[in-house]
Amino acid sequence: MTDDRPTLGVGMVGYAFMGRVHAQAWRSVGAFFDLPVRASMTVLAGRSRRVERAAADLGWAHAVTDWRDLVARDDVHIVDICAPGDAHAEIALAALAAGKHVLCEKPLANTVAEAEEMAEAAQQAEAHGVLSMVGFNYRRVPAVAYARRLVASGRLGSIRHVRATYLQDWIVDPAHPLVWRLDRARAGSGALGDIGAHIIDLAQFVTGEAVTGVSALTETFVKERPLADGPGSGPVTVDDAAVFLARMSGGALATFEATRFAAGRKNALRLEINGSLGSLAFDFERLNELEFHDHTLPPEEAGFRRILATEPGHPYAAAWWPPGHGLGYEHTFTHEIRDFLDCVAAGKPPSPSFADGLQVQRVLAAVEASAAASSVWTPIPT
Amino acid sequence: MTDDRPTLGVGMVGYAFMGRVHAQAWRSVGAFFDLPVRASMTVLAGRSRRVERAAADLGWAHAVTDWRDLVARDDVHIVDICAPGDAHAEIALAALAAGKHVLCEKPLANTVAEAEEMAEAAQQAEAHGVLSMVGFNYRRVPAVAYARRLVASGRLGSIRHVRATYLQDWIVDPAHPLVWRLDRARAGSGALGDIGAHIIDLAQFVTGEAVTGVSALTETFVKERPLADGPGSGPVTVDDAAVFLARMSGGALATFEATRFAAGRKNALRLEINGSLGSLAFDFERLNELEFHDHTLPPEEAGFRRILATEPGHPYAAAWWPPGHGLGYEHTFTHEIRDFLDCVAAGKPPSPSFADGLQVQRVLAAVEASAAASSVWTPIPT
Amino acid sequence: MTDDRPTLGVGMVGYAFMGRVHAQAWRSVGAFFDLPVRASMTVLAGRSRRVERAAADLGWAHAVTDWRDLVARDDVHIVDICAPGDAHAEIALAALAAGKHVLCEKPLANTVAEAEEMAEAAQQAEAHGVLSMVGFNYRRVPAVAYARRLVASGRLGSIRHVRATYLQDWIVDPAHPLVWRLDRARAGSGALGDIGAHIIDLAQFVTGEAVTGVSALTETFVKERPLADGPGSGPVTVDDAAVFLARMSGGALATFEATRFAAGRKNALRLEINGSLGSLAFDFERLNELEFHDHTLPPEEAGFRRILATEPGHPYAAAWWPPGHGLGYEHTFTHEIRDFLDCVAAGKPPSPSFADGLQVQRVLAAVEASAAASSVWTPIPT
Amino acid sequence: MTDDRPTLGVGMVGYAFMGRVHAQAWRSVGAFFDLPVRASMTVLAGRSRRVERAAADLGWAHAVTDWRDLVARDDVHIVDICAPGDAHAEIALAALAAGKHVLCEKPLANTVAEAEEMAEAAQQAEAHGVLSMVGFNYRRVPAVAYARRLVASGRLGSIRHVRATYLQDWIVDPAHPLVWRLDRARAGSGALGDIGAHIIDLAQFVTGEAVTGVSALTETFVKERPLADGPGSGPVTVDDAAVFLARMSGGALATFEATRFAAGRKNALRLEINGSLGSLAFDFERLNELEFHDHTLPPEEAGFRRILATEPGHPYAAAWWPPGHGLGYEHTFTHEIRDFLDCVAAGKPPSPSFADGLQVQRVLAAVEASAAASSVWTPIPT
Repeated sequence: MTDDRPTLGVGMVGYAFMGRVHAQAWRSVGAFFDLPVRASMTVLAGRSRRVERAAADLGWAHAVTDWRDLVARDDVHIVDICAPGDAHAEIALAALAAGKHVLCEKPLANTVAEAEEMAEAAQQAEAHGVLSMVGFNYRRVPAVAYARRLVASGRLGSIRHVRATYLQDWIVDPAHPLVWRLDRARAGSGALGDIGAHIIDLAQFVTGEAVTGVSALTETFVKERPLADGPGSGPVTVDDAAVFLARMSGGALATFEATRFAAGRKNALRLEINGSLGSLAFDFERLNELEFHDHTLPPEEAGFRRILATEPGHPYAAAWWPPGHGLGYEHTFTHEIRDFLDCVAAGKPPSPSFADGLQVQRVLAAVEASAAASSVWTPIPT
Repeated sequence: MTDDRPTLGVGMVGYAFMGRVHAQAWRSVGAFFDLPVRASMTVLAGRSRRVERAAADLGWAHAVTDWRDLVARDDVHIVDICAPGDAHAEIALAALAAGKHVLCEKPLANTVAEAEEMAEAAQQAEAHGVLSMVGFNYRRVPAVAYARRLVASGRLGSIRHVRATYLQDWIVDPAHPLVWRLDRARAGSGALGDIGAHIIDLAQFVTGEAVTGVSALTETFVKERPLADGPGSGPVTVDDAAVFLARMSGGALATFEATRFAAGRKNALRLEINGSLGSLAFDFERLNELEFHDHTLPPEEAGFRRILATEPGHPYAAAWWPPGHGLGYEHTFTHEIRDFLDCVAAGKPPSPSFADGLQVQRVLAAVEASAAASSVWTPIPT
Repeated sequence: MTDDRPTLGVGMVGYAFMGRVHAQAWRSVGAFFDLPVRASMTVLAGRSRRVERAAADLGWAHAVTDWRDLVARDDVHIVDICAPGDAHAEIALAALAAGKHVLCEKPLANTVAEAEEMAEAAQQAEAHGVLSMVGFNYRRVPAVAYARRLVASGRLGSIRHVRATYLQDWIVDPAHPLVWRLDRARAGSGALGDIGAHIIDLAQFVTGEAVTGVSALTETFVKERPLADGPGSGPVTVDDAAVFLARMSGGALATFEATRFAAGRKNALRLEINGSLGSLAFDFERLNELEFHDHTLPPEEAGFRRILATEPGHPYAAAWWPPGHGLGYEHTFTHEIRDFLDCVAAGKPPSPSFADGLQVQRVLAAVEASAAASSVWTPIPT
Repeated sequence: MTDDRPTLGVGMVGYAFMGRVHAQAWRSVGAFFDLPVRASMTVLAGRSRRVERAAADLGWAHAVTDWRDLVARDDVHIVDICAPGDAHAEIALAALAAGKHVLCEKPLANTVAEAEEMAEAAQQAEAHGVLSMVGFNYRRVPAVAYARRLVASGRLGSIRHVRATYLQDWIVDPAHPLVWRLDRARAGSGALGDIGAHIIDLAQFVTGEAVTGVSALTETFVKERPLADGPGSGPVTVDDAAVFLARMSGGALATFEATRFAAGRKNALRLEINGSLGSLAFDFERLNELEFHDHTLPPEEAGFRRILATEPGHPYAAAWWPPGHGLGYEHTFTHEIRDFLDCVAAGKPPSPSFADGLQVQRVLAAVEASAAASSVWTPIPT
């Protein structure tokens, strides 16, 4: 009954939305998955003294107000970066340099240049057994991971169409204040980077194909908003919505739409994939379901079937509850951390890598370039 | 009890798919709607002697093998054109010249030039009380007509997004033969003109706004197919699918997708519209339903509501059955003919006009132009 | 090209809701189905002079104000009874005695005694080649007919559960007047006979098993309503709702619910059947869809699939439009009349027979008996 | 920043399915809710030495193999009973006698007699400030709690119908072994007590009305199954399914169905409630959604709306993620424990009480009595 698994100390930077859900995942993962290592919630870094209360509430043993102190600790083996995008590069580079494994939230960085530097550093670190991963958590929805498995096993045949949307509505009201996510300097971009990045990654992940070029439009519907912290108003400097066409490396046509102006859609990350032998449809608002059409069946009995992705044979699902007892948003992070820890323990590069994150960044940049150049076709550099 | 309504004789050209459904509408409309005129199913024109049996089966009093004989008859006051697109212009021009009211199937013509000539002729005929209409039947789905009413009454506020797809799957199998719809010479285009035209019209109809420009991709996935009438194979000369971005005249972003390669989607004409005050969603595969989100409700009780568009207060619905007793595809044509006859009787130009048909044709042409020019933004001439 | 098919004259009694939809079916059936006979819409019977205008509108050649005149005509070979339930027996018995084939709306009669007399007469007439059928139209929804086919071919295995509801809401408002359907003398019963009869028939039809006994509750929620034709109010003498448990002859448990008090449900005739090898679900509010779960698939890829019952291989569907172009309520009657005419032409007893109608009547009577006797288990006599 | 909240020690009995999900809730609740007390995961009791590893995995500080040792500890203030039903009474009585607050899983007991004793003990303990609660976790689904709020605020008017099902399919296959849940001695009953208890409680909770009587059928479809732990087979001594009719105290008719033989339904706890002013529908397989029909709207714009119960204004939801980022099964337990701790801290009796659990037990007993007596109407004693 002795537990002789090695213990890895974890330091997490940031305790806002992403930090809260990462903490829940770190706290829960060991109770459900048979991990090769024990992960210890060692230290939380934040910028104010409030970090101490947050650490207590969220289950971290220590708290620091400078992330450099976290990176410097010997008892920290993993750095989990949940800070805003403009801080990713500096922290990740420092952590990798210090020999820490790094889990970094998406988007990898706010610019392609930063992302290139990070991917380069990650590659070099990997040569020394230091691993890194970018946090596209939606890959770890069981229904999504199973979708990828269906495609990979040939059940869809040749992919013809990808239809991906990420629809939210939290700034439909023009009175919504000018929060940091609407400021280009801090957020990098608007709907495009925040939620568009997810559907780019997901479309590539599930199809196993890359976006090879795009044609795009972006728009800022509400150009000025009330300041968040005082009277007056200021300009919105990011996109409210981005729509783009794309081609996938296997020849499929794709449409993408990321917006915060789809009234009534709360977190409608939707993906439909049509192939020569079958089709798939997914909507995160019904995250436990995957729709699958098997085109090889007799037409009379074919149709999109609603698979509840809660069977023991579905990815990740056996660790949880009996069939039909659904999972939620947070579990995608628990799965992400499980996979990360498995890879770290095995010395195997986890996926998605920083290079994958860089590639998504390049698609985002191409979208912005196309939108700025009369929607002209813009290939993705490889 | 005497019926002193005037009688209008109808001549219909073509008795394939469109002819069959138009005939059912002509046969039924008087039993359900209180028409200002009586429509008499006078004559059917086809190209072979089989037209006689078709006339008998479908309820037409006479049959002719040359449409010119139909146009020449004094007892024909209305010409209903259900022939393939490459014949529309000649028949319509002759009928208008002969003083007949014309109902012409969509797309109005195979080329912008033809459509311009037709719109010009229609405008001139209208000055003499001769009326014309193009058959975008999906406008007459009660749920769609009600959607337009909701938008027009301001319930959606400013339109931000349009998402329109028309997904079919009848040629997913590469062994499907090279039928006339896959031949550019006869069909004009592929999915684009056949089904893309419908979603362009519908997006404009429901929003009350025009498409002002597009950026497009088209693709022919299966480039060669078995000949329909003998051994060997031949090239597919039309698009299998078309995807395009657009802007609407009111500032909304739009995405369009028309394809015959969406395995499992049979007739998924879908439209979603997001506005500043509400949203709408429609799918022809569930044609009796309209989803409406009222964004002005408290968030706790807001959500897309499934309206069964079968209440007496819904457009056209009072003529039929009690609530919940659904209508089908054919009824869109019955409604179209009801509206057409009402206009003809009142001497009022029906809608959509040939000019509306021409405008859709111009969008189609812009899509093809953009696709041929690296997806570059292509404005629609007005 | 000569049409040497025999012509059968049809006389229809009643032109209210049922008469209108039957007329549409008689008018349309020949244009879509290759019938062995030609059906001529000869005469319509009603009780007032308004029948003449109705005949003209609906396409009947003649009109009479006494159904006996209709039955007496030599040019009438088929009598279609769309009058209220309390008139069914007298008309049907007279028509059968006169050697006319009879199509009678459901429920067969208002009492078991009447239904027994009718079934007896039908059996005797059949011996002389005179055929009869009761109009449970919902059997002819393509999705429902296909459901039966799936069960009959063993795809569901042993049936374990039947869950049938017929939910409407047209009298939820207590201010709704006391129409004839709320009067026991004329309507026989309330929700039970009007809509409960349909789900009893449908459950038996799809499973191929009989209801063997019931335990029931009935209720009249609004016991007094405004008179329909003057001031004051009167008592509601029928049930507003009926719920009952049942066993099927194959051992399944069943629940039934028929109500006019399910706010928001317009015509929710729903049927779910669970078997040892699979399950089916149907809702008339989405009449073109059938949900099918194949329990023999691997659990990871199993789930209820939404079959659009519009493929050429689905019952009746090939006569109509391409896949995905849905049918509506009226087409169930077109199909019913097609099947009836096929049987008449072949001299083959159509289904459901008057004996089938009688058996449903016996279930209805058992429901009322159980509800009146503390819900005690009440077997159905055979 | 000092945390001066009192600490309550928790002892949990059992670490199978229920124990695992309770542990996750105890582990998580403090990170998301601002609790008036700190709950310490003190000790886990199990029957074998494996409890030690379970305690380590699940986060309990200590482990004991006799629950009496747990109850005897001074540092345990709360006893959480997750053992099988036949052990509930003994443990709960001992814990209450020892002055421990008790959270007991449902059903409260295996017999009415045991439940009566427990309810009596709970009432006496309450007089001394010792509180108890039974774990009907589904009350704490945000959508369900919001449903109750809608009913309580009058939005549904008078309740006319309740339709409740709990459908599973885990023993459809006759080869499924004879596990303890199929043994009457240990499980008390089959589908009835295991899942039927939940829908009885839920129907009463959401409507605020009591079940006053029932008429029932039960069935064991597969009467013999392979032994779980060796060769040979044995008899199934519990029901596979139970269906029953009921009346609610406010006059509504209700139908209930609990089964483990609904192939394709995994955890379909469904509730529909129809009232004079509106209706509600819920399905746990889509636990983040509530459907609400507001019958006071104009009919043209009324319909069941899909409310995503993830808004800050929905019960419990503000503690978690942004709108649309769904919750799962486990969170119902986190909410339950939050509510329990709030009550314990305030000295306020939590709900549902043991008396509520007893009343559900009485309904279960009435169902069995009715099923054994020709389904005769069986009132619930109060």
